Amino acid sequence: MESVAIVGVGLIGGSFGLALRSQGFAGPILGVSSSGAIQAALELRAISARSTLEEAVESADLVYLAQPVDRILSTIEQLAAPVASRVRRRPILVTDAGSTKFRIVQHASRFLPPNCFLGGHPMAGKERSGVEVAEAGLFQNRPYVLTPGAGFSHPFEPAFRKWLNVLGTRVISLDAAEHDRVVAFTSHLPQLLSTAIAATLESASDPLLSELHGTGLLDMSRLALSSSSLWSSIIATNRECILSAIAAFSTELEAIREAVERDSLSTSFVRANTFSAALRK
Amino acid sequence: MESVAIVGVGLIGGSFGLALRSQGFAGPILGVSSSGAIQAALELRAISARSTLEEAVESADLVYLAQPVDRILSTIEQLAAPVASRVRRRPILVTDAGSTKFRIVQHASRFLPPNCFLGGHPMAGKERSGVEVAEAGLFQNRPYVLTPGAGFSHPFEPAFRKWLNVLGTRVISLDAAEHDRVVAFTSHLPQLLSTAIAATLESASDPLLSELHGTGLLDMSRLALSSSSLWSSIIATNRECILSAIAAFSTELEAIREAVERDSLSTSFVRANTFSAALRK
Repeated sequence: MESVAIVGVGLIGGSFGLALRSQGFAGPILGVSSSGAIQAALELRAISARSTLEEAVESADLVYLAQPVDRILSTIEQLAAPVASRVRRRPILVTDAGSTKFRIVQHASRFLPPNCFLGGHPMAGKERSGVEVAEAGLFQNRPYVLTPGAGFSHPFEPAFRKWLNVLGTRVISLDAAEHDRVVAFTSHLPQLLSTAIAATLESASDPLLSELHGTGLLDMSRLALSSSSLWSSIIATNRECILSAIAAFSTELEAIREAVERDSLSTSFVRANTFSAALRK
Repeated sequence: MESVAIVGVGLIGGSFGLALRSQGFAGPILGVSSSGAIQAALELRAISARSTLEEAVESADLVYLAQPVDRILSTIEQLAAPVASRVRRRPILVTDAGSTKFRIVQHASRFLPPNCFLGGHPMAGKERSGVEVAEAGLFQNRPYVLTPGAGFSHPFEPAFRKWLNVLGTRVISLDAAEHDRVVAFTSHLPQLLSTAIAATLESASDPLLSELHGTGLLDMSRLALSSSSLWSSIIATNRECILSAIAAFSTELEAIREAVERDSLSTSFVRANTFSAALRK
């Protein structure tokens, strides 16, 4: 794995480039992105050169798709012809950093030659987007899911996994559908609840609400700063799992509402304490 | 206001003592609390001496009730006789730091002489409790609600307000019922939602849920670490407002659930973005 191309040089793509460089990756890091992102990424040294998608497939060993999910799906279609041509000559590993995995892996198996796509998801992020907020340490100590599927093997896979370890991630191999089910609870549900609480307070149209609060409301509304453009394709590609997670939450909230009426909240608090403490171990 | 007594020397009471000292308050700061809390508070210099409630009323100009809401209510009853006796000789100002105000103010007007109780609520806290986590800067840049009620006046009130300013708080005078309505949305609802999401994930009983998450879940579950013993009396004294806040949230969540089904989330995101950005201005 001597050269890398990053498609979509935003928070995640830019952080991947910065992380590789800061850990001693010496090869070229090409960037395929909008002019503004490329300019900023070159200045930050997150990439070493600008490239087209076709040139990237021609020269890179690893193509890293770090776009929103809907854009990853269309990039995979665009990659079909150049990747098919490239693998007849030299191996190439295509991977992605999309927030959902089942649809992306399914799309790759339809459009790309077998054994050249490895789904991935770095469980790291910020409420702000763009290469300007990229950080070399973004992936450090964070889980990094890979969804190789049964029988997957690729000559560059060991090197890619080695770099993920060097970057300080905790690599976890998982079935793509299982990944989507889990993140519906641990990532998509928290996002929608943060959006829901901020929208609830906005609807109340009372200036006192943004004046009289403790730090707890800041925590609970941070994710609500996220952009809907990023989230619409996450939701579109994980709808059933997200609806299940909302249903489970609604059941729990209804139990809490009834407990508020009856003055008997402690069981929910005890279970919530247990989970939250375990999360911090 | 030459001497202060803090009743309940935990996170809030201890932080009040530390803050006064760090800003140059030179008089005695008595502590009325459990032996363990008194010992720790003396070592941290959050208080200067231990006292009984009766001695505190005898010698302090300001009595600061920093207990959970249910304990504040019973302390107010205990204060009835000694405060009535004291005010016949010298003025004394009793204030509190309870998370709800209407019931406390109502209780004080029933048990204490007129014009000697001023309800208060520093909008600051932590998910951990106890004087061990107290901080001199806890109240800095945080709102501090006072609920004086119509016609309230007290010779020590200007000095108390001056000290709250010196401590760096933003003092806001508000009707007690209005305070409770606002904090139901900005404090009690966020707490119950954090508890609900953590309890939802605990119920799923899947070890992957505490392994595969981003930093967003840590934000959303931090309040869930709070103790139910503190919250049960907050809920018991603000039930109707909390039920209204839960109802408003449930309406918003149902709209989001329907939008997930229909792929049309952006209006909730836009409104949530607006509120969350305003909160950070």
